[in-house]
Order: sequence, then C-alpha cells, then structure tokens
Amino acid sequence: MPEQTTTQIFDLGDFQLSTGFILPNAKLSYKTHGSLNPAKDNAILFPHFLGGAPEALEIFIGEDRPLDPRKYFIILPGLFGNGFSSSPSNTEPPFDQGAFPQTNIADDVIAQHRLVTEVFNIKELHLVLGWSVGALQTYEWAVRFPNMIKRAASIAGAPKPSPWTTLWLRTAIEEPVVSDPAWNNGFYTDPQAIQGGLRRQAHVMALTLPPLGFYREDEEVWRSMGFISRDDFISRFWEAFMVPQDPNNLITQSRKTRAADPSFGGDLAAALQQIKAKMFVVAFTGDMMFPPEECKRDAQRIPNAQFREISSISGHLTTFALTEQDRQAMDDVLQEILAD
Amino acid sequence: MPEQTTTQIFDLGDFQLSTGFILPNAKLSYKTHGSLNPAKDNAILFPHFLGGAPEALEIFIGEDRPLDPRKYFIILPGLFGNGFSSSPSNTEPPFDQGAFPQTNIADDVIAQHRLVTEVFNIKELHLVLGWSVGALQTYEWAVRFPNMIKRAASIAGAPKPSPWTTLWLRTAIEEPVVSDPAWNNGFYTDPQAIQGGLRRQAHVMALTLPPLGFYREDEEVWRSMGFISRDDFISRFWEAFMVPQDPNNLITQSRKTRAADPSFGGDLAAALQQIKAKMFVVAFTGDMMFPPEECKRDAQRIPNAQFREISSISGHLTTFALTEQDRQAMDDVLQEILAD
Repeated sequence: MPEQTTTQIFDLGDFQLSTGFILPNAKLSYKTHGSLNPAKDNAILFPHFLGGAPEALEIFIGEDRPLDPRKYFIILPGLFGNGFSSSPSNTEPPFDQGAFPQTNIADDVIAQHRLVTEVFNIKELHLVLGWSVGALQTYEWAVRFPNMIKRAASIAGAPKPSPWTTLWLRTAIEEPVVSDPAWNNGFYTDPQAIQGGLRRQAHVMALTLPPLGFYREDEEVWRSMGFISRDDFISRFWEAFMVPQDPNNLITQSRKTRAADPSFGGDLAAALQQIKAKMFVVAFTGDMMFPPEECKRDAQRIPNAQFREISSISGHLTTFALTEQDRQAMDDVLQEILAD
Repeated sequence: MPEQTTTQIFDLGDFQLSTGFILPNAKLSYKTHGSLNPAKDNAILFPHFLGGAPEALEIFIGEDRPLDPRKYFIILPGLFGNGFSSSPSNTEPPFDQGAFPQTNIADDVIAQHRLVTEVFNIKELHLVLGWSVGALQTYEWAVRFPNMIKRAASIAGAPKPSPWTTLWLRTAIEEPVVSDPAWNNGFYTDPQAIQGGLRRQAHVMALTLPPLGFYREDEEVWRSMGFISRDDFISRFWEAFMVPQDPNNLITQSRKTRAADPSFGGDLAAALQQIKAKMFVVAFTGDMMFPPEECKRDAQRIPNAQFREISSISGHLTTFALTEQDRQAMDDVLQEILAD
C-alpha cells in the first residue's frame, strides 16, 4: 500500500454542466501520490469506476508497484456523484438528493481537465487510464483533449456502453433501488433505509459480472479469493461493496454511464479517429460487460492502439487482483503500457 | 398448429407432498394430442418450463411436425404452481397464496406418473422430454422411473440447477416480486398490483438469458425475431411473458427448481447411473443458464446418453424457435431423438 494521502477538493465554482444546468459551488474530489517533476511530464491520471473510490485503485500504487510514486505523480480524480465530488448526497437544495441534475462523463472530464491544468499547470499527461467507468472517462479524455495525452489505457471498458451494458445499468443499478419502498423519488431521509435495494443491486451484480463458470461446483473460483461459499462471496464482496453506498449517488453515476458517448450522438468512428495517444485497449477473457471481441473492434478503430487480452478466471473483476494471478497479469500489462 | 384441445384436470385427491404437507383435493392439469394406440406404446410426455404453459410447446406438435399426433399420443402435463394444477392462486385456505406449501419437482413427477398410469394405463413412455425446468422434470422421471422410459431428452437443462442457476432463480424470479411494495408476504388482493416486480423480473431475464452478443449493435439478433428495437423485444417478449403471471405461482415454481435434485441430497452421480432410457442431452451454444460444457459433463455421467450441441444465436431461447434457423435445428434434433 502507498503512503496515506487525504482526499482533496478542487472548487470548480459555478460549473456549467453539458446537460443545461449550472451547479453552484461545484466540487471535484481527488487524491494524489508522488510529486510533479519540474518538467511537469510525469503525471498519470487514473479516474475511478462506478461506485468506486480512489482507494480501490491504490493497489497498483506504491514503491515497486507499477505506478511508483517515486517516479510518477499520480492523480486519482473523482467524478460527480461519487459522494466526495458534488453529488446528490452532499449538494444544497434545489439540487439535493433526487433533484441532482443529470451529468455526463464529459462534465467529469472537463472538471478533471480544469484540475489538471488550473491546479497543477500540466500541459501533457504521461498516461490516462481507467477500468470500466474509468475507461469511459479515459476515452472521453482521449477524444476531447487529444493533444494532451501521451498514453491512454482502457482496461475492460469502451468508448460508449453497449446495448447490453446500458440494459445492465438500468436493471442492476437503477431498478433495484428506484423500486424500493423507501425510495420516495430519491428523497429518503437515510440511505440505509434502502439497503434492501442496495443488496438486490449486489445480487444482480453477483449474477452478471463474474464470468461463466465462476460459481460452477468443479471450479468455485471464489475459493481462490478467500471466500468459503458462493453466498459468503456475495455477502462479503458484493453486499459489502454496495450497502454503504448512497442510492442517489449510484443513480447519478449509472445514468451518466448509460449516456456516455465521446461523439455526443455523432459519428463515433470519426471521434475515435481523433485520438492521438498511444493507446492500449485491454480486455479480460470472460468479461460479459466488455467482451474481448468488442474491445478488439474498438482498438481497430483507433489510429495508434494495441489490443491486449488478459486471460483470467475473474472476468470483469480481474482489475481487483483478487487472485495472485490477476495481480501479476494486471501488473504486467500496466508495466507494458508504461514502457517506452 | 395442432388441433385445439382443452386443458384437463386430473384429481389427485389428498396428495402427500415430499415436503411433509398433504394438499387436499390436489389437481394436475394436462393437455393431450393424438390418440393412445392399443399397444399403449406411442405416448410422449412433454412437461413444460417455469412460467410456461402447454401451449408454448405445441409449436412442435402437428401433422408433419416432429411430434405428429397421427403417430404419437402426446401428453403435456402441468406442474404444481403453474396456475392450472394446484397453485397458490387457486388453492383454498389454509394453503392459499403466500401459504402454499413448498413442493418439489419430485412431487410433480409423482403426480404425472399417477396421471400416466392411472388415467391412461401406460406402462412405458416412448419419450419423456423437456426444456429448462421441463428438463429437470425429465431427469427426475428418468431416475425415479427408469424402467418406464424408453427415451428421454433433456433440452437445455440439467439434473439439478447449478450454483449460478440457483442464484439466478433467487435474483431474477424471487427477489423482484418479494421486494415489491405490494407483495404483503404473498397475500396481495390482485396479482397486477405487483406488475412492477413482474416487469423487473422480465428485465433481469432479458439481461441474462439471451447469449452474449445478442444485443450488440452489429448483431441485433432481436431483428431476426421481428422486433424493432432492444426495448421493443424487452416489452413484447419478456414483459408480455411475465406480466400476466401470478407472483406466488412463480415463487412456487422457482423454489422447487432451486431445490431440484433427483438424488435428494445424495449421490447424484449414482442416481444418474440408474437411468436406463436412451437419453439425449441437448445444449444450445451460448446458453448461460445451461452451458454446453456442463450439459456434456452430465451426458458423460449417464450410461446410455448422447450429447448434442445446437449452434444458435438465441442461446437458452433456442427452444422458442423465434428464428427459422432455430425452428429447423429444433425440428432436426427432435426427429433424431425419435428416430429408431
């Protein structure tokens, strides 16, 4: 684990969202590791995933880890709706709770760009990378600010979610809480009143995110991750992840993910052609959300992209390095991405 | 389509369930097509699937269809909880609605056996076959009454559900309705009050039952089935299937499916060794619920079984013959099963 750092807040002021709202006193949370060098050319931006927090990404950061703070200045930016940045759970009326405005991934990236340029005066990022919804942010970065990014890596992600993935977001993330008896249009008094819905989210995730065969009697992959039964895995991994979340915050993140599109409804192939970064498109075998064949197709649409498939028993969850093999595979691919 | 026949009811009297309850005036619904020949050796038993009804299976029945009523006497038996047989929705107190007792697949098969032997005086069935939960009944038949079955066919099924499948039943079928604000422990006054939950069931089914790639932009498999969008498919196929259902009936069917096990918690491999029928284990490529590799393993545990994999773009849904190719593939395998 890296040295402890604290979450910081960048004041964005009154921030104009692409959805036609102005968010007063908007905030972007972030953490950093390491130091920006005098040339300001050692910065890595690593946005996080849906429901996640920077801490989850710190497994890759540390001395002798792929993202070494002795060498790199690593910025872990938040996104709107993550509970630390401006979110339904921490915003004043009229934009509190169920009335928090729709935001787009593009808004997050614009806010992150302001952080990078205004706070750190960085002109070029050595690397932008992200997993899952972090990868959606990476694509938005690579298309929107092509001259600012030297390297980019999408890890189990896509420029825009597939029809299956948007159905997943609606079914796994939104419906279980929106249908909860305590939901009250998002104006609940206590997020824990909706923990039934949060647990149902966890169950649909447990059903759909591990790869086929994960639970099979003759494989029981969860054993290699330290769980003693399928339901122990569901409780201590999925429910433990979901129950502390704020439902409105999750809905905000889910809706922006569903709408993600670097071409804003235009020509996505043309948008991807604009990417100048040296890009790695990394996929995990058995990932139902971002299947390798789809990621491979994405890589073929980007001028300077390479496709890598990581063979794993963990599918979409490979990033979490729940097994030693996954940890090694993730380390290896990050090292390759950073190699010159 | 075959000639119209009506649903009939076999009175089972006071029926002792394997779960320790006696169901007073128990009923088993069934339909038949064709006539039993004098030798009583042309009977085919074709139990139906979860949430299904005999009508859905009639696509395979008719003159010049694989199950030709000029040649075969085809019995389409119900199961407890299907809404026609004894079910939460049609049973008197104290076993009405949310108080309907747990039943097992074995109870259905015992009731079906009584129908076959007491009503029709059949000593040997030419074929028992079923899809999905119908296949679970087929396995129970083949293990419980090995001397009565000449041929058996499991189509996209298993002797007992896998850990993924039991998680699916809990997550896709049970939780969406049990968590509905109108559920009231199963003592609702109108099943339609729970249609929000029924639609959420439909959405998890839409997410998990088509094969990977089904919704992909460059495949859009639903087009070949006559739908104009993903959400049109979800509405007119999945919601149309689920919304008319009675939630308690679905829960009854789901719970018995979760508990299905021809060895009753004993040695399943030994139980499968008892099967004497010539058996076909048919799997569909891309079926996440009953993956071909699992079905193949099942076939290897049965003395006289052959494994067949049907290549299809429809995965678990291939049985419905939603495309001409699926219809042809299903017809072909049924003809092979019936060939001497």
